Amino acid sequence: MKLRPDNTRDRLIDTAMELFHSQGYQATGVAQILKKAEVNSGSLYYFFPTKEDLLLAVLEKYKLMLHPALLEPIWSRIDDPIEKVFGLLDGYRRLLMMTECNYGCPIGNLALEIGHSHAKARQLLADNFKGWRDAVHECLNAADDRLPSDVDRAQLASFVLTVMEGAVMQARTERSLKPFDDAVTQLRDYFDRLTADGTQWGAPAASELKPRINTDKE
Amino acid sequence: MKLRPDNTRDRLIDTAMELFHSQGYQATGVAQILKKAEVNSGSLYYFFPTKEDLLLAVLEKYKLMLHPALLEPIWSRIDDPIEKVFGLLDGYRRLLMMTECNYGCPIGNLALEIGHSHAKARQLLADNFKGWRDAVHECLNAADDRLPSDVDRAQLASFVLTVMEGAVMQARTERSLKPFDDAVTQLRDYFDRLTADGTQWGAPAASELKPRINTDKE
Repeated sequence: MKLRPDNTRDRLIDTAMELFHSQGYQATGVAQILKKAEVNSGSLYYFFPTKEDLLLAVLEKYKLMLHPALLEPIWSRIDDPIEKVFGLLDGYRRLLMMTECNYGCPIGNLALEIGHSHAKARQLLADNFKGWRDAVHECLNAADDRLPSDVDRAQLASFVLTVMEGAVMQARTERSLKPFDDAVTQLRDYFDRLTADGTQWGAPAASELKPRINTDKE
Repeated sequence: MKLRPDNTRDRLIDTAMELFHSQGYQATGVAQILKKAEVNSGSLYYFFPTKEDLLLAVLEKYKLMLHPALLEPIWSRIDDPIEKVFGLLDGYRRLLMMTECNYGCPIGNLALEIGHSHAKARQLLADNFKGWRDAVHECLNAADDRLPSDVDRAQLASFVLTVMEGAVMQARTERSLKPFDDAVTQLRDYFDRLTADGTQWGAPAASELKPRINTDKE
């Protein structure tokens, strides 16, 4: 992770990253970034002709940070692959707790804020989500023998992300950890039932237990 | 639901509701609301001294609309209480589909956009979420004998909201129904396992799971 072509550029990215996270993309003015990064506007426009260019650089940096900054500190202290997933969720809980439920997932916040436009940024947001899902998917693969065979691992990884994002949003709205904790408790219950089914009974399909209504999908 | 003290006031609320949903709160200017509602600024400021006052009125209206506009059309055509919950989720899928994954849950969008400030609005957002959760909770109570006794119904209702909000967000970011469908499929799998456990074995804890027999019910 030694890729610092220019100190000013990095300072701009780090400052923008912090401000976009703490107060949002729209609410962050270029003047505020310049002041906080102690950079003049000429340098900013040299590196980033538009605010969106700066956003793209921030999202690229999040992609690079996923493993070294987010996952490795958790992966390195937890061995059990399913506990790794819950350790990851606990990291978001800590962030909520430290910020009195003000900060959520930076990627999720930006996804909702700029959901309507910014095609390039949206692609990078999707890439970030994909990296996260893939990391959880690897954990689920490592716990393969404990999960029912008919549960799609990629889909379950996506579900974990869905739950995390929804839970962080609820916690921020209610200014309370309770909705987050409730969601994690329920996800834990789901995993308990999955591993109980997967480990003990050669992975029965849930669909074999009860008729399902087929939702039409593309 | 006949509470129309003034037509202009209602038109302002309806217009703001539509614009806040389609393009966000910050991005919607007062001038745009006036033009679309065909109302002059004097009338606007008479009813709503600030844009936030208008937001509060929109959120109050969403609260009033929850049952007649959102739930009743679904509740009236679906009898099974658990299918009611999935019918509700399907309503969000339709909204995503109709808008090419542009529109999400209006309350969720606003929750994320104004999460940092606007204490009164946040309270109303929380009230809206509570109304939604309570409605799902009632469905789960109606399906009480099919769920394991150790699963907290209120918490499970909250989980359904968490999954919906997270799934809508993913769908908007990826501009695809797939993450939404994946999340609903996984939630369905969870409910299948819950009802299989709840119905057949007098609601055992996941950790006590015993072999299960394949039975069709309903």
